[in-house]
Amino acid sequence: MLSPLRTKDGPTPVLNCRCEVEALYRQRRVTSSLKRCTIPPVEVRIAVAKVNKYASSESGDTLEAVERPNGGVSVVLADGQTSGRGAKAVSMMVVRKVIGLLAEGVRDGAAARAASDALFTEKKGQVISTLNICSVDLHSGTIVLTRNNPAPMFVCRGDKADCLAAESTPLGTSRDVRPVITEMEIEPGLIIVVYTDGLVHAGRRRGQPMDACEVIGSLLEEQDPSPQEMADSLLSHAMKLDDNRPADDISVVVLKVVHHAGDDVRRMSIRLPIGS
Amino acid sequence: MLSPLRTKDGPTPVLNCRCEVEALYRQRRVTSSLKRCTIPPVEVRIAVAKVNKYASSESGDTLEAVERPNGGVSVVLADGQTSGRGAKAVSMMVVRKVIGLLAEGVRDGAAARAASDALFTEKKGQVISTLNICSVDLHSGTIVLTRNNPAPMFVCRGDKADCLAAESTPLGTSRDVRPVITEMEIEPGLIIVVYTDGLVHAGRRRGQPMDACEVIGSLLEEQDPSPQEMADSLLSHAMKLDDNRPADDISVVVLKVVHHAGDDVRRMSIRLPIGS
Repeated sequence: MLSPLRTKDGPTPVLNCRCEVEALYRQRRVTSSLKRCTIPPVEVRIAVAKVNKYASSESGDTLEAVERPNGGVSVVLADGQTSGRGAKAVSMMVVRKVIGLLAEGVRDGAAARAASDALFTEKKGQVISTLNICSVDLHSGTIVLTRNNPAPMFVCRGDKADCLAAESTPLGTSRDVRPVITEMEIEPGLIIVVYTDGLVHAGRRRGQPMDACEVIGSLLEEQDPSPQEMADSLLSHAMKLDDNRPADDISVVVLKVVHHAGDDVRRMSIRLPIGS
Repeated sequence: MLSPLRTKDGPTPVLNCRCEVEALYRQRRVTSSLKRCTIPPVEVRIAVAKVNKYASSESGDTLEAVERPNGGVSVVLADGQTSGRGAKAVSMMVVRKVIGLLAEGVRDGAAARAASDALFTEKKGQVISTLNICSVDLHSGTIVLTRNNPAPMFVCRGDKADCLAAESTPLGTSRDVRPVITEMEIEPGLIIVVYTDGLVHAGRRRGQPMDACEVIGSLLEEQDPSPQEMADSLLSHAMKLDDNRPADDISVVVLKVVHHAGDDVRRMSIRLPIGS
């Protein structure tokens, strides 16, 4: 669905796009006790930007954040097939199933499989949904990325962006859907970019498809971009390609690990534009 | 537990604190169809600041935000009895129960009662938990505040702050716990402040108890404070009174309705400091 290796104006030297990066497993630091791993003092910042398909009051994308029972946070993003009310019901069902299981301590991969089985059982394979889970797991001291989505994810360090685009099927397609799981240590400078296929399809109507890889590369060249700036830039780039009338729901999640310089206060902010 | 009428340096003329404000019910605009009410173009901004009790890795406070199935968002905040791991398990159970029900379309008051009954049944009245739900309900076009918490809430318009301190019992105390429900229209300029009792108890150790009413009043005198600035200021004020070693978990939620001036993008950001 996306060819991250293609660039419009020749190779971009700062970008290291690999289409089929194998899951970047590192040695797990999970212990059998509930004692947490030693993590360097960092702050994880997560930003979300989300817009509905043009002239649609319901978004087929659902995103929720949930606290993990053994420490940390998970962001769960699902995109139900088609758009509007039916798609919303499907993506809400998937996200609800997943966050319910995560809150009980179920591991991310098992939660994704359970949601797929539940969707397949209910809809008999007729309705599918993509799923991405971004977890900051303080028990294992790692970031765990779970993907059932043909759209790729990006893992960036410094000015290098790795495109994780290993084949991945959405939930509900068959009885044995497996997620692609990527796990990495929580370390300062790490940036994760996850999005739904609305971003991939942006601009196709006009024959100018979005090149997420290129946009992310140019964002990384800027001076220490905040995750909200990155999410907003990616979304506004996609919207411009659709003449500010998005052809599909678009959701972008950017997670960034920075050195811990401030206080120990956890913060969350939500901005919800309503009416029009 | 708190005397909002008391001020240290005499009456503050800009503040209109009423101790026993009756629930500010206005005529409901709920229709029986799923068609949404007409809401003026506004943006709802919600900010959260949350800190653990000093030297405690687990917070007894749990806060989650959930999308409402008929449009809007709910922020659910619970504070389990005592602090540490046991309190965390209780507040997580309560929040999980409530957001599960809200996501199914259950109304806020019924969700609070259900969570109370579940807690009472499981713990036989031995363990209690406070609960606050702040909902932006796009179906009814209102903000619905549900409170099972002796700590008051504040509803501010312009430079006036009403202290809602009607008697309210925590969940799990008996079989027929009723929440105090306050509903108001979504209108620009409205500010809601909700917090757990950690804020109320701040400074008691040193004999200088926090006067939330006074701090909120002085914040409202500032030029258009953002909800995050308000939440941060309230929390940092409380922490200073405890010599930056909070005697209890403290969570502050500030909701502000502003005129809709920007794009239609929904945004969320999370900041999670970890390690130390």
